[in-house]
Amino acid sequence: MKEIEPYIRVTQYHETDQMGIINHVNYIRWMEEARVDYLEKIGFGYEKAVEAGIDFALLGIQCRYKAMTRFRERVKIYVFVKKISPMRITVGYEMIGENDGKVRFTAESEHCYYSSVKNRPVRLDRELPKLYEKLLAYCEEAEIRQGRAE
Amino acid sequence: MKEIEPYIRVTQYHETDQMGIINHVNYIRWMEEARVDYLEKIGFGYEKAVEAGIDFALLGIQCRYKAMTRFRERVKIYVFVKKISPMRITVGYEMIGENDGKVRFTAESEHCYYSSVKNRPVRLDRELPKLYEKLLAYCEEAEIRQGRAE
Amino acid sequence: MKEIEPYIRVTQYHETDQMGIINHVNYIRWMEEARVDYLEKIGFGYEKAVEAGIDFALLGIQCRYKAMTRFRERVKIYVFVKKISPMRITVGYEMIGENDGKVRFTAESEHCYYSSVKNRPVRLDRELPKLYEKLLAYCEEAEIRQGRAE
Amino acid sequence: MKEIEPYIRVTQYHETDQMGIINHVNYIRWMEEARVDYLEKIGFGYEKAVEAGIDFALLGIQCRYKAMTRFRERVKIYVFVKKISPMRITVGYEMIGENDGKVRFTAESEHCYYSSVKNRPVRLDRELPKLYEKLLAYCEEAEIRQGRAE
Repeated sequence: MKEIEPYIRVTQYHETDQMGIINHVNYIRWMEEARVDYLEKIGFGYEKAVEAGIDFALLGIQCRYKAMTRFRERVKIYVFVKKISPMRITVGYEMIGENDGKVRFTAESEHCYYSSVKNRPVRLDRELPKLYEKLLAYCEEAEIRQGRAE
Repeated sequence: MKEIEPYIRVTQYHETDQMGIINHVNYIRWMEEARVDYLEKIGFGYEKAVEAGIDFALLGIQCRYKAMTRFRERVKIYVFVKKISPMRITVGYEMIGENDGKVRFTAESEHCYYSSVKNRPVRLDRELPKLYEKLLAYCEEAEIRQGRAE
Repeated sequence: MKEIEPYIRVTQYHETDQMGIINHVNYIRWMEEARVDYLEKIGFGYEKAVEAGIDFALLGIQCRYKAMTRFRERVKIYVFVKKISPMRITVGYEMIGENDGKVRFTAESEHCYYSSVKNRPVRLDRELPKLYEKLLAYCEEAEIRQGRAE
Repeated sequence: MKEIEPYIRVTQYHETDQMGIINHVNYIRWMEEARVDYLEKIGFGYEKAVEAGIDFALLGIQCRYKAMTRFRERVKIYVFVKKISPMRITVGYEMIGENDGKVRFTAESEHCYYSSVKNRPVRLDRELPKLYEKLLAYCEEAEIRQGRAE
């Protein structure tokens, strides 16, 4: 199974703070950007889920800030499916500086699948079986990735 | 007619940038916050307009950055209705440092009234006549204010 | 020891997203705002630490999103010192809707004390002993609070 | 003289608001991103100016919101130097939807050159003559562009 290319992000001036580094709040946004980019890359754009009335509602996040980033750096954000079930998904993130190869940030986000039509969490395998199968397939891949990283 | 109290805002760390000042992008957010606060103060909370399906869609903004603000300053943002018609409203803003009384920022925003139900701009005097009358009343006040300021 | 008043935050329009709720990214900003507010309330404004060249650099965050918030809600954010040592501090957060008393969000952030002068983490008890003592004193209080909450 | 490629931006979920469109505040950020991208493309990365202690401090902006953008659209932002003098620069922006070719947003920003070392506005032709000459050269190009657009 082919490796998923990371999401490339260039840090912006408006993302800096007065410590002279990128403010940590932005990393949370990049997680979302990278997750959406990942879904597109595995072949199921998030906008299709949204159009079908399904959102990945956030239940929790865990983040570790390992090393700072500065204005006009390029970072690579690797996304992987850590755990998935019909009701829940846990997505992992690893952010690496393109110039130095150093890990800057790692994170996890846990989501349920929320139907804006039914106004409650739903089973993804019933609502969007194609997306569910894709994520399931990549989850196995993810486990291998994790194994390699550790 | 009674003067409308300004919107008080404390600048935040996450709003600073690496120049060591508050990043200009945040002022645009504060305009929105101050406008919503103003509507509440004149007695017609914006959330009521939104519930009725009416948004103040933005057509344009003009801003002048007069003096910087820094972390943990308190600013007062005065809002006034500069022009109003059944199809359009122009809102003015003047931001003053609480500690030094200096003007930091002035701005104008122009809006139409957009119905999310009809999916097009609408006449405010027909859709929300009470809000329209209030704004109209305060517009006269605004003209007096402006006269004083110049 | 007196109870610390929570940080009150009104949710803003620019903080909503297309699910019609407040986007989760904003909660991370509110944590920072509430933490700074807390330091001011216990009598050592964060700007004084920053002026002395000390920042609370973020090492990690853990957040649980319990219930959504919507435009123009008022939330109360309780802050407490969960753990403190000369090199590290863990701050806890509990966000409660003012209208319904429901917990919307809980979080923890872990920080080291970073000297922008020495360009490395430092001991807070040596750099800012007054702040360290205050935080230490409130840490005991925090433990009682936690006990009550559970 | 060769045409400068526009800055390509994909709209993000965290940039949407509860009207179901991209919140206008984000466009101000994109202007900054596009401006920095432009400087890189004409061969003088903004980070070099910043390292030399020179920032393009914002004096004013004027924006016209022509048509909304939605989640997961691609927009092209054309940047051009509208006016330049040793003390000031006016930058223009035109944002076009990639899928429909429609103008979504036009804007101008006016800047002075601020030295963080001297703590005051400075002459760009003296501080960074190479950057000044480049901008001057592209300014002529810009006038032709504008002529074409109207």
